[in-house]
Amino acid sequence: MRLRIDLSYDGTDFHGWATQPDLRTVQGTLEAALATVLRLPDVDVVCAGRTDTGVHARGQVVHADLPSPYDERLLRRLNGILPPDIRVREVAPAPEGFDARFSAVWRRYAYRVADDPSLLDPLTRGHVLVWPRRLDVAAMNEASSPLLGLQDFAAFCKQREGATTIRTLLDLGWARDAAGLAVCSVRADAFCHHMVRSLVGCLLAVGDGRRPPSWAASILAAGKRDPAVAVVPAHGLTLEEVCYPASGLGEQADRTRARREVP
Amino acid sequence: MRLRIDLSYDGTDFHGWATQPDLRTVQGTLEAALATVLRLPDVDVVCAGRTDTGVHARGQVVHADLPSPYDERLLRRLNGILPPDIRVREVAPAPEGFDARFSAVWRRYAYRVADDPSLLDPLTRGHVLVWPRRLDVAAMNEASSPLLGLQDFAAFCKQREGATTIRTLLDLGWARDAAGLAVCSVRADAFCHHMVRSLVGCLLAVGDGRRPPSWAASILAAGKRDPAVAVVPAHGLTLEEVCYPASGLGEQADRTRARREVP
Repeated sequence: MRLRIDLSYDGTDFHGWATQPDLRTVQGTLEAALATVLRLPDVDVVCAGRTDTGVHARGQVVHADLPSPYDERLLRRLNGILPPDIRVREVAPAPEGFDARFSAVWRRYAYRVADDPSLLDPLTRGHVLVWPRRLDVAAMNEASSPLLGLQDFAAFCKQREGATTIRTLLDLGWARDAAGLAVCSVRADAFCHHMVRSLVGCLLAVGDGRRPPSWAASILAAGKRDPAVAVVPAHGLTLEEVCYPASGLGEQADRTRARREVP
Repeated sequence: MRLRIDLSYDGTDFHGWATQPDLRTVQGTLEAALATVLRLPDVDVVCAGRTDTGVHARGQVVHADLPSPYDERLLRRLNGILPPDIRVREVAPAPEGFDARFSAVWRRYAYRVADDPSLLDPLTRGHVLVWPRRLDVAAMNEASSPLLGLQDFAAFCKQREGATTIRTLLDLGWARDAAGLAVCSVRADAFCHHMVRSLVGCLLAVGDGRRPPSWAASILAAGKRDPAVAVVPAHGLTLEEVCYPASGLGEQADRTRARREVP
């Protein structure tokens, strides 16, 4: 049977999501915990968003195919043996046709920035970037809006042989949260490698006045990476949410798979 | 001249506020940083709320008397040499008559609880208590209201020879925050030792149904500590804010000093 597992992690001490030999990864740690709890030689999991080293998640979703029937005690048992920087929030039998990666309709990330000494908070230092200059949220939002929609994001992506960089950017906006942090919320059908961190790097240059708002659209239009666009540090980035359709999962998965490259 | 310094810290790796020989404390770390930056043999600071081991602060306020004139670069220099678990948010010359401890009108603390697996968030695990049972916020608020006002909180305080346990509790209430955590916000003119953590321990027993809401008032009325009231762990507690009067600081300080014991 297929399980859906919703989990959160603090990416600080992981070498990213994907299993790598001799490195501590989220996938490796989760698969080992599942194998221990279920007394299986090994378990494979597939996730919605493969986060880079240092990137966090509050709403990561994975699936795993298991030979055993579903046991309600699994959530408690997993959290009992997982390290405290990974927590399972929910475990349930997956609906028919569910695939954590290919059924996902969109992913939402947040990037958090403290742009004033009064916002410095040691309690959140692990997932908030400290920026030395004040940011103009309105200017960043003006720069963001031309990037929305179905576009080729090659200028904001780390190139990968044979992979498309066309994505549908559904939301890209900045707002102040309750604490006063500048938070970028970005939502797309899917993201290519380094895309969120490059978009944020571009927008921070607008926000602190080094570039005009029109700069973001001109970078996009150029269609190739510009060394003036920084890839901001990983620790400010959190995968917040993955959305799946309420029904018709099988159909959705087929459609998505057909449209996107399979590595 | 007297400086007012506003700071935040992650209490996890400190043995509380107050300097102790051979232990890492917030006061000791801050005083050493001030002495280094100001090239003084030593500096003494006085704080608004002496936090226990493991307790955090977002809005701690201290004062320090310095022989040198105020230098605007002090904030940046302090943050440059302080460890990342202490951040100075603001430094300014203190108004006439200001005393971080005795001028304070009230202190506000928050205690955060994750009472459901869906709320588990490794990014906030250092300052949120995990509670195994769901909490009834309305029941906790019902239990809280009879505790408000000028009362003897001996039942919720660690006894100290010759010290009064009479305090004015200005606010005590529970609410769900944006993430769904149960957050207790508590505000008083001042707190005695272990008071917030004992109040929260009492209210959690009401919230998860082990005790009726009337239990809190009966504990208060008994006037002595009851072993059934747990002192909850320090890591869920954060000193959020200290309030000072907008003017007339000297008068306020004199009034407060006269009313409260000076150790």
